[in-house]
Amino acid sequence: METWLTTLITKTPQEGFELAIKLARMGVKYTQPSAEVRDRLRPAYAENADSLTMASQVVALNFQTVAAANNYWR
Amino acid sequence: METWLTTLITKTPQEGFELAIKLARMGVKYTQPSAEVRDRLRPAYAENADSLTMASQVVALNFQTVAAANNYWR
Amino acid sequence: METWLTTLITKTPQEGFELAIKLARMGVKYTQPSAEVRDRLRPAYAENADSLTMASQVVALNFQTVAAANNYWR
Amino acid sequence: METWLTTLITKTPQEGFELAIKLARMGVKYTQPSAEVRDRLRPAYAENADSLTMASQVVALNFQTVAAANNYWR
Amino acid sequence: METWLTTLITKTPQEGFELAIKLARMGVKYTQPSAEVRDRLRPAYAENADSLTMASQVVALNFQTVAAANNYWR
Amino acid sequence: METWLTTLITKTPQEGFELAIKLARMGVKYTQPSAEVRDRLRPAYAENADSLTMASQVVALNFQTVAAANNYWR
Repeated sequence: METWLTTLITKTPQEGFELAIKLARMGVKYTQPSAEVRDRLRPAYAENADSLTMASQVVALNFQTVAAANNYWR
Repeated sequence: METWLTTLITKTPQEGFELAIKLARMGVKYTQPSAEVRDRLRPAYAENADSLTMASQVVALNFQTVAAANNYWR
Repeated sequence: METWLTTLITKTPQEGFELAIKLARMGVKYTQPSAEVRDRLRPAYAENADSLTMASQVVALNFQTVAAANNYWR
Repeated sequence: METWLTTLITKTPQEGFELAIKLARMGVKYTQPSAEVRDRLRPAYAENADSLTMASQVVALNFQTVAAANNYWR
Repeated sequence: METWLTTLITKTPQEGFELAIKLARMGVKYTQPSAEVRDRLRPAYAENADSLTMASQVVALNFQTVAAANNYWR
Repeated sequence: METWLTTLITKTPQEGFELAIKLARMGVKYTQPSAEVRDRLRPAYAENADSLTMASQVVALNFQTVAAANNYWR
């Protein structure tokens, strides 16, 4: 795997939230490395409310980590 | 994506809770950017008890982050 | 939304637990504002063991926040 | 609701774990106050592996809270 | 219940991880005390990918607690 | 079980994320020690969007632990 994560520090909370999204997606990518498969799964998944809530949950967990790393951008 | 999150600091716990709700919704929006699709999914979802509990769970996780950022409004 | 949350500080752990329950319910209420719909969903939900466990999970997450806010009532 | 929780402090980690179990059960009890209904749900629930794992998850979340309250019994 | 947990302190991270597994299993055992029932549930459960992921999630939550108790073995 | 975890400290956040993935997998391995069974479960699992999200969730929880252990690589 190439380098994709060198720091948890971000300039703004929004960039931190977007990093949390990237972490959530990388958690998937390590388990399913095929972009072709992931793209095939996306349409059904993105139209299922519970799947979207579950995705948001993983983002929330990663955002906890990123926010703590940035001392909550205080 | 336009700027939507510039700080985790809120004046009151209730504003913090409402920010947590926004974070939960943005976690969905980044995965499903189409407002049309999200609106279509909402009715069934909002009438399913387990879906509502799952939504409340994501809010709880984000509220942990926002509350910590605000030093729990102590 | 009227004011419903002005502090996370409670006198006792039990009051803190009951605040956590309130937070869990408000997480639902923001998504499904209709009391009529929520009341309609309750019977089936309250007789499903997994639904009850999920509800208890959201309470546990919110209780983590409230307990930390109160420095664990030490 | 009568008084059932006056402190999160316990003498040993095991008592803390058992308090976490109590918290998990009280999270259910506040949603389903009827002992008759809870007893009726128990048999099927206690023979379903995923239900048991979910129960253990709620205990784990509450044990995080209790352990922190006790400074991990260090 | 006999004494099974006297400390969260372990000599190594791996022993801490194994304690987290024990905590996850004890969370189940308090809900389903019958070893006979638990053994009967195991085969199907151990061959279901989502059940295994859920089990790993409970371990992760308990490992958070054990790792914090040990100051992350730093 | 042979030694597989001697430290939570990693040189970079990415190595920490990869350790979190290892922890998630070991959480499964302790429950299902058979590599043959795990390999058999993988194809269906890796093509199910919700299973992948659940896997990413466990990684997120373990990454919280590893990141805290490393003081967020600040």
